[in-house]
Amino acid sequence: MSEIRAAITAIEAFLPEYRLTNQELGKMVDTSDEWIMQRVGIKERRILKGGLATSDMMAEAAKKLLEKTHTSPDEIDFVLAATNTPDMWFPATACIVCDKLGIRNAWGYDLLAACSGFIYALETVSKFVESGRYRKVLLLAGDKMSAITDYTDRTTCPLFGDAATALLIEPVTEDVGVIDHLFRVDGVGRRYLHLQGGGSLYPASHDTISKRMHYTHQDGKMVFKYAVSNMADVAVEMMKRHQISPDDLAWLVPHQANLRIIDAVSRRMGLTTEKVMINIEKYGNTTAATIPLCLYEWIPRLKKGDKLILAAFGGGFTWGAMYLKWAY
Amino acid sequence: MSEIRAAITAIEAFLPEYRLTNQELGKMVDTSDEWIMQRVGIKERRILKGGLATSDMMAEAAKKLLEKTHTSPDEIDFVLAATNTPDMWFPATACIVCDKLGIRNAWGYDLLAACSGFIYALETVSKFVESGRYRKVLLLAGDKMSAITDYTDRTTCPLFGDAATALLIEPVTEDVGVIDHLFRVDGVGRRYLHLQGGGSLYPASHDTISKRMHYTHQDGKMVFKYAVSNMADVAVEMMKRHQISPDDLAWLVPHQANLRIIDAVSRRMGLTTEKVMINIEKYGNTTAATIPLCLYEWIPRLKKGDKLILAAFGGGFTWGAMYLKWAY
Repeated sequence: MSEIRAAITAIEAFLPEYRLTNQELGKMVDTSDEWIMQRVGIKERRILKGGLATSDMMAEAAKKLLEKTHTSPDEIDFVLAATNTPDMWFPATACIVCDKLGIRNAWGYDLLAACSGFIYALETVSKFVESGRYRKVLLLAGDKMSAITDYTDRTTCPLFGDAATALLIEPVTEDVGVIDHLFRVDGVGRRYLHLQGGGSLYPASHDTISKRMHYTHQDGKMVFKYAVSNMADVAVEMMKRHQISPDDLAWLVPHQANLRIIDAVSRRMGLTTEKVMINIEKYGNTTAATIPLCLYEWIPRLKKGDKLILAAFGGGFTWGAMYLKWAY
Repeated sequence: MSEIRAAITAIEAFLPEYRLTNQELGKMVDTSDEWIMQRVGIKERRILKGGLATSDMMAEAAKKLLEKTHTSPDEIDFVLAATNTPDMWFPATACIVCDKLGIRNAWGYDLLAACSGFIYALETVSKFVESGRYRKVLLLAGDKMSAITDYTDRTTCPLFGDAATALLIEPVTEDVGVIDHLFRVDGVGRRYLHLQGGGSLYPASHDTISKRMHYTHQDGKMVFKYAVSNMADVAVEMMKRHQISPDDLAWLVPHQANLRIIDAVSRRMGLTTEKVMINIEKYGNTTAATIPLCLYEWIPRLKKGDKLILAAFGGGFTWGAMYLKWAY
């Protein structure tokens, strides 16, 4: 084949040191390790301290990425930051990371699509790479969810953690890389999962602060229902479209929001747990970072040509599945 | 030529009814019509009232667009919203507009890149259209700047206005449509133009509200300096790259932030005012909406094949120039 595809050629991650355990959460709200493990399968999550923000985590991950791949900041031609928790409304967190790393020959922006941010961003940068004009793209994906988590709300505070990842995306002409995507949005989701305060609908005010409108709110039951059926639908459709049997598939890489959602989707796809990347127990839902954080931890087990399906579902609702063959 | 290009095939706009004039601003802060006209060339700006948000303006513009082009919501396959002022952090404003219009077969997200949002978004959707897989893309660009403008700050409150636009982007195989882009970011800009409060760096609190951190802040002199040289550099470079003389060019379509910036960039390009789209006097800086709002108002004067350069500069810093031939 001579067409250009985009491939992930390196991944690095930044994980804050501080571990917020279920035991500690049990001292903050009425919850317990047993309750949290049963419902969502999370043991602990990392929390970024010291007044740092999403760009700090992304910059750390990106710095390691450039060092490991012997890439000069000048070689980077496009920087896309997938995040739910930009440092600020503007400038874009992509620009802030460029400033911190000395990237001067690129352009970029922030992509906001909640928990589907990573797959939407990977598809977007792939389109630029496939055009033949972009050679080294820096894809950043991360969230400081602790900045928008209400630690007095026992239904949401166990769910989220902080993390960031940085990926190098390059053109390939072999039969590897990003092959297909199947994405959807349904705005019905705005009723069930949102962070209402601080935007143009409810500009930040003492009133929005007092009403706790700057935190993530969700109707867990409704989100669970939509997540399982929609995520499984696109993943199964992707398998059919490319005639991938459960045996053919090397790994499902699911967004890590809830272990029960992952289990239900895997079952619908006919997969055993051995083929599913799962690390939610250690990190919780780090939003844009979950899928690349799985890939990062599984690198030693990945082989060139491995068939992967990435699948996500989240706020919007946004969801989708991607099919790619691992490149190295 | 047989390659697929992306072309703007229709534009609609929504402008709030309320006009905030310089006279009225003079009653709110220490300013005057003469002072504002001399420095930035703005007479009045539109303000969205009634508790509405960016998605409401985008939905109105998009509704008109679908009606005018006899497009069913089901035909839209991708929705990109360029905005600085999303309704909320999540869901994406793109998803909210999909919900308001009944768009069910698309995916999409919000693109945040301040004043360069529109050109970055046009290039992004072009890449999807050029792939041959997307047939009808809805590009939304708009901002409710009044939600983040400090009406006690005489240096910034005259600058901004509210507006939204909706564009249909479709594939073409004729020699029209989006041809080239030259974009850059320089994160140095975060020091001179920002909205610091409410993100992951300074999460919204009573303290960030009291410190007025949820408003646009800028060092006007520094922004002016960077804007003129950077915007002119890429626009002139684009003319050279495609051997476009000032006579060949039909129109420069500049971001409308300051009449003096537009004048300086036009001069550097060797253009007379007759070739520059300018409507800043009526609307001020509507951020993501300025360039498409110009195009919308100039449609009666545009001819198929007209060579246009779009140029923007803004928060980040982000900036760039695009070259396209008008498609209808």
